[in-house]
Amino acid sequence: MIAPVDVRAAARVLEGVAHRTPVVRSRTLGAHVVLKPESFQRAGAFKFRGAYNKISSLPPRTPVLAYSSGNHAQAVALSARLVGAQATILMPSDAPRTKVDATLGYGAEVVTYDRYTEDREALGVALAAERGLELVRPYDDPLVMAGAGTAALELLEDAGIVDTLVVPVGGGGLIAGSATIAKDLGVRRVVGVEPEAGDDWRRSFDAGRPVAIDVPRTIADGLQTSAPGTLTWEVARQLVDEIVTVTDAQIVEAMRFAFERLKLVVEPSGAVGIAALLFGIVEAPSVGIVVSGGNVSAERFAELLA
Amino acid sequence: MIAPVDVRAAARVLEGVAHRTPVVRSRTLGAHVVLKPESFQRAGAFKFRGAYNKISSLPPRTPVLAYSSGNHAQAVALSARLVGAQATILMPSDAPRTKVDATLGYGAEVVTYDRYTEDREALGVALAAERGLELVRPYDDPLVMAGAGTAALELLEDAGIVDTLVVPVGGGGLIAGSATIAKDLGVRRVVGVEPEAGDDWRRSFDAGRPVAIDVPRTIADGLQTSAPGTLTWEVARQLVDEIVTVTDAQIVEAMRFAFERLKLVVEPSGAVGIAALLFGIVEAPSVGIVVSGGNVSAERFAELLA
Repeated sequence: MIAPVDVRAAARVLEGVAHRTPVVRSRTLGAHVVLKPESFQRAGAFKFRGAYNKISSLPPRTPVLAYSSGNHAQAVALSARLVGAQATILMPSDAPRTKVDATLGYGAEVVTYDRYTEDREALGVALAAERGLELVRPYDDPLVMAGAGTAALELLEDAGIVDTLVVPVGGGGLIAGSATIAKDLGVRRVVGVEPEAGDDWRRSFDAGRPVAIDVPRTIADGLQTSAPGTLTWEVARQLVDEIVTVTDAQIVEAMRFAFERLKLVVEPSGAVGIAALLFGIVEAPSVGIVVSGGNVSAERFAELLA
Repeated sequence: MIAPVDVRAAARVLEGVAHRTPVVRSRTLGAHVVLKPESFQRAGAFKFRGAYNKISSLPPRTPVLAYSSGNHAQAVALSARLVGAQATILMPSDAPRTKVDATLGYGAEVVTYDRYTEDREALGVALAAERGLELVRPYDDPLVMAGAGTAALELLEDAGIVDTLVVPVGGGGLIAGSATIAKDLGVRRVVGVEPEAGDDWRRSFDAGRPVAIDVPRTIADGLQTSAPGTLTWEVARQLVDEIVTVTDAQIVEAMRFAFERLKLVVEPSGAVGIAALLFGIVEAPSVGIVVSGGNVSAERFAELLA
């Protein structure tokens, strides 16, 4: 589906455009634990990597469409602006206000839908056909997966090869790209982490085929997928070793830990890997954790911690 | 009092021991604004720079004493541990449990006193004499000032020379060291920022001599000094161009801005420079801001933002 060379090509496309986010060590989480805080990425999450890799590959000024609960929306809006293209974003009507505002702030047009009653994919396809827009999928696209994988590539280049790489899993784009490059570079084990309430990947791994669940209710709004992607599943089932889950309460504690000990702002979806280490759900001689994003308002953070 | 060469010497002492914290740009704060987040420094604040520079200059394993309920305590405790010396920290008996625990966690002995009935300075001097401890002052010491100045040195090395350097001012150690190196490197203007309720430095600048005020009530607990230090005043009155003040409400907005836009955890005292830019109190063609620390609990952060 994608090969390590695709992730390396994405890294060249992103050089000087995406931020090379730092790697951060935490001895509290373990003797050899490094984190890659994509909170410092442009638009506040790893999503920029995949979106820009995809959009910059299109013919100049191709207008684009995305459907997203947040971070992908901002990533597409910003990427489109950088290449001088128009972006239309289909967002759930209950998306966090800060994410909607940020998307508008990047110059995109926002169209809303009800995530519990409407099918965003059908809506997106219809809108794309009607307006002649190129759909930029949030994960189920080889260029998006490859772009996302550059986060893991940088982590492993800057911190050295780890035994275990821990990656949040929602649609699966980040873990597909990350596992592709990590396994090529000699990482022994790739572990996906998802919210307990949204354990579609764990069920799928158990069943040996993609399993769909109801849209999960979890604070990790970026991981509220109900089934693995088609392409991401194909990659992940071959390269990902294990899926673990964390509870919303564990995610909150991980956010607190990141704030107080690491001085990092981490959104719920971004904190699942930290939670897995903090609560001993993942143990290994050396660990790399992709912290996928930091888009959470101060109000929401305070509310979650209360 | 101190010379640029002292700050450069401190930088060599700290190399490989202190973190070289990153510089972060913020276009929202201005076209050319760079921040130096010392929240990522060891023990969470710039204080480690001065404490380590001082303690490592003492004869091997000299036991040390500090009186502080805040960042200086942890900086001294950690520095002492790193050089294999015993640290005794005098803390008020009602100091926040988290700060006491952090200090104990670095292996220091904590001696408590009643801040309403006992004089910590007299107690400290007595304890130092009785136990043969070397007192490490929080700011009024040339090695502490020079160490603190390395934060500004790194900022200017990594981001280039700015027109205006903005520095929080409490006891004055950070601004004394920073102004010493900044003026030597060609920074045109150094501005100190303090809480409006604790404007001892502004009053002192207006009067042309150190002026004492009552212990101020402000959320910026690291800047609750009632008068400039003796040595820091001598340096600052020659090299600092201006003192400005920010309100507690402006500090809170700066903390929110840092969290949401920069993804940085900043304690109230650390946010005063950001507040000065955010509210147009300081304007300049290019600005460097020293963000002095990030030691604030998630609970306290939530409480302040409420």
